[in-house]
Amino acid sequence: MRSIIDITDLSVTEITKLIEASLQILHDPQAYQNNAAGKILATLFYEPSTRTRLSFESAMYGIGGQVISVAAASNSSAVKGETISDTLQVVSNYADIVAIRHPNDGAALVAAQAASVPVINAGDGSHLHPTQTLADLLTIYRHFGRLSGLTIVCVGDLLYGRTVHSLLHALARYENNRFVLVSPDELRLPADLRNSLNQAGILVEETASLAQAIVHADVIYMTRVQQERFADKAEYERLKDSFRLDPKMMKNAPETAIVLHPLPRVNEIAKGLDQDPRAKYFEQTLNGKLIRTALIDFLLADAANDPQPNPRPELLDAVCLTNARAGADAPESLQSCVNKRCVSHIEREIEIWAKQPGNICVYCDGLLR
Amino acid sequence: MRSIIDITDLSVTEITKLIEASLQILHDPQAYQNNAAGKILATLFYEPSTRTRLSFESAMYGIGGQVISVAAASNSSAVKGETISDTLQVVSNYADIVAIRHPNDGAALVAAQAASVPVINAGDGSHLHPTQTLADLLTIYRHFGRLSGLTIVCVGDLLYGRTVHSLLHALARYENNRFVLVSPDELRLPADLRNSLNQAGILVEETASLAQAIVHADVIYMTRVQQERFADKAEYERLKDSFRLDPKMMKNAPETAIVLHPLPRVNEIAKGLDQDPRAKYFEQTLNGKLIRTALIDFLLADAANDPQPNPRPELLDAVCLTNARAGADAPESLQSCVNKRCVSHIEREIEIWAKQPGNICVYCDGLLR
Amino acid sequence: MRSIIDITDLSVTEITKLIEASLQILHDPQAYQNNAAGKILATLFYEPSTRTRLSFESAMYGIGGQVISVAAASNSSAVKGETISDTLQVVSNYADIVAIRHPNDGAALVAAQAASVPVINAGDGSHLHPTQTLADLLTIYRHFGRLSGLTIVCVGDLLYGRTVHSLLHALARYENNRFVLVSPDELRLPADLRNSLNQAGILVEETASLAQAIVHADVIYMTRVQQERFADKAEYERLKDSFRLDPKMMKNAPETAIVLHPLPRVNEIAKGLDQDPRAKYFEQTLNGKLIRTALIDFLLADAANDPQPNPRPELLDAVCLTNARAGADAPESLQSCVNKRCVSHIEREIEIWAKQPGNICVYCDGLLR
Repeated sequence: MRSIIDITDLSVTEITKLIEASLQILHDPQAYQNNAAGKILATLFYEPSTRTRLSFESAMYGIGGQVISVAAASNSSAVKGETISDTLQVVSNYADIVAIRHPNDGAALVAAQAASVPVINAGDGSHLHPTQTLADLLTIYRHFGRLSGLTIVCVGDLLYGRTVHSLLHALARYENNRFVLVSPDELRLPADLRNSLNQAGILVEETASLAQAIVHADVIYMTRVQQERFADKAEYERLKDSFRLDPKMMKNAPETAIVLHPLPRVNEIAKGLDQDPRAKYFEQTLNGKLIRTALIDFLLADAANDPQPNPRPELLDAVCLTNARAGADAPESLQSCVNKRCVSHIEREIEIWAKQPGNICVYCDGLLR
Repeated sequence: MRSIIDITDLSVTEITKLIEASLQILHDPQAYQNNAAGKILATLFYEPSTRTRLSFESAMYGIGGQVISVAAASNSSAVKGETISDTLQVVSNYADIVAIRHPNDGAALVAAQAASVPVINAGDGSHLHPTQTLADLLTIYRHFGRLSGLTIVCVGDLLYGRTVHSLLHALARYENNRFVLVSPDELRLPADLRNSLNQAGILVEETASLAQAIVHADVIYMTRVQQERFADKAEYERLKDSFRLDPKMMKNAPETAIVLHPLPRVNEIAKGLDQDPRAKYFEQTLNGKLIRTALIDFLLADAANDPQPNPRPELLDAVCLTNARAGADAPESLQSCVNKRCVSHIEREIEIWAKQPGNICVYCDGLLR
Repeated sequence: MRSIIDITDLSVTEITKLIEASLQILHDPQAYQNNAAGKILATLFYEPSTRTRLSFESAMYGIGGQVISVAAASNSSAVKGETISDTLQVVSNYADIVAIRHPNDGAALVAAQAASVPVINAGDGSHLHPTQTLADLLTIYRHFGRLSGLTIVCVGDLLYGRTVHSLLHALARYENNRFVLVSPDELRLPADLRNSLNQAGILVEETASLAQAIVHADVIYMTRVQQERFADKAEYERLKDSFRLDPKMMKNAPETAIVLHPLPRVNEIAKGLDQDPRAKYFEQTLNGKLIRTALIDFLLADAANDPQPNPRPELLDAVCLTNARAGADAPESLQSCVNKRCVSHIEREIEIWAKQPGNICVYCDGLLR
């Protein structure tokens, strides 16, 4: 049994297979229409994300399955008082596969460790969102026929934008990709991510000029500057319009370029651009549904072949810092994660695990102290 | 491809066909049970309306389809930050047909113009609610075998009550109907609607006496006086019980009359009336489900025959007042709608269109200034 | 047509049949997979209870049915302004069976009296929750092969805990069961329930020592101490940890004992206990789904054989205290229920009925005054 928490849980070969399956589903949906008959998907959305939830549900119905759902109406916790682990142990009795969205970084890993069915991370805080990245990759593949040898221009909030981080990780595994980063100074890509790309020999340029950046672009990946990322509202107001794409700006880009956006957009892409054939952000949402269909299909088939509960191989390289494994009540944790959004701060009786070396939190990739 | 925003989007012939289909569905549901197999209905409810939503969903399941849903839990917007247009372009990739409910007048038209699947207006603010009117027409037809030659008594809030306005429009297309309006002075039918009925040669009487009005009634159409329509709460308290139907009052009505109500009722119909065989307001909800089933079935079949995105023929007679069609960013709109609930005030980068003559807002039928 | 409001609505023979059906469903789900094809379950949850709702929905899908749902996002009423009776009359036109959860005691009986389809009580305030009790009974049966001759230790909030009350009622119908009650003084079993068990010749012991109580236990039934039951928050803080089960405490219990909990737990069962093979609280949730499946299947089959609307035989022994049955408007009720959570205080125009002797409220079992 497999769970997908991060895009790197899938090998390059597996991603290629998911892309091929997605294209088959697009062209011959009937061939897949009963693959999940009698199966149930649980969409557990602890924070609202209508688009992602509907995409998963539409995907499941397309292959003949059913859906049970917890959709938080606001940013309040959907299932107060109960731990994520307990909820997942219960829901494993009601569903065959789970897609979880949660405001806390690392929540999806906690879910996968507790569940006895496959878990798909549908976004954990500002941490990971692998099915968005799969949608991005499928969109790029449909237009270029490859995922290598491309110039990708990433625009907007590159500091907090998990979709960009994940896309960079994903495309860095293919040859000869070149990244151009366009962001306000305050929202530059985190230094450690930039360094790790550089060390891997990948070309990464930074610029503040959108107009120049897109001249040689294959992919223009726009993101929004979210108000909730800013402590200072005036700062947000000053920055939000800085990196906006409109028909005039798009005259700088090649005819063959494509424009992506994880949506929802606010005003970083002018509505007037929607008629431009290079605008692919709505097709991207169709692709998201297609590749989620392929992923659910893949994980259900895998679970049928190998019903063993979720092994988490990366834990083999991690060290447990909680000395209470033998059944006694859990004591105060010896260490705690510096990331305030880390799931370890809200999940009762959670064990703290450190990735080695560097004492990195296994849940959220934050520092342990 | 067709969308249904207003009851007048359907011809009299089409309404007759929908009524006939509803009766077939009632008597032989099996004949329809797979008509929507493999299809998905999206119920996008930006404000809560449990009854209407469940009615659509039950209708879709009855013909073998599936449902994805966004159900606002409160009066807060369900999908904050994203325009209706963007949401509908995305949801068109997840569903084959959409039923939308929205607190703003004109929202359903905006939705239909953006969608690439059929859209049904499930209520846009205090503007239109065509499937309620279809339910009303089916109920009247089931009891009288006709939609003409009837005396219809409308009671309650006739100023804001969109169901009454829509019913009057609908029944005015049939011969020899006569309307009796019973409302407090403050909540009389809007003058322009009364004038247009008069000009069409239709008999419209107004009275403040419920007891007298119902003596010759065929249909008694009750509505509730909603507190949210009043700025002054005391005014609401004074009026809400003025036009209440109870068993004693019903002694004035013929044995052959029927009582309708769009529900929910508060106290404008006494519970004691429920046993009266003339009370048809619960049967009316069954009829609502039946004719929504027929409508979904009709629109899906139509879309299969003609997959062209929603043409909006009435726009041919309208004039665009926003001079930014050529791709440049939209400027400030030159004109704006006096109706504060009009969708044009909340939808970013919307174009303002005027119906001619008279500069009437194409979305909400308000005045443009 | 039958509705299930209380566990005592089912005979001992019927419970045995539901347990047998549940085991068949567990071992051969395919045999049941189309039993509810074409049928719709409505889950009307006026207060959130994710686990119970998902359990019902998963159950319905497992036998081929569909689901429409109203899930309150918070403790606010889901369908404001409309009476429960009206809602159920409407929903009876959209669904073939209803599961209702409501914050007010007695709401499920009001629902069943109004509905023209079977109604299952999925929890009415702190009053009744029969399907939880069915889940408990199935779990006990799966481990002991019987429901008699057992020592059941009930721990925690025995004053307000409806699951314990219901379990006691249910197990008192089987021979040679012995109950040990462990609770803080403030949360002891209500005196009238204790007296009625004693009068029926059933052994009931009370103790404040958890360690002693579990030495001879067959079933250890844990419950949580809910903060909302306390007017005084400090009192809650003082009591909540008093009766906590952890691996050390469990050394006092026999190897053959089982630990149950209706969930969600807060901290009354240490997470470290989850690995103990005696911990059955997650299996209990699977059993809840299985027996809800059996119950829905049973009630749908019963309704198909006998479509007469819900007869409520217990009303035959009750007296109506509202002298307005003849169609006139309902007057002030002559008597009212002392239980402030009773549905009679929120449902407009409700009739007050007294069980005889003793003037007990037919809805909530409170005293009428």
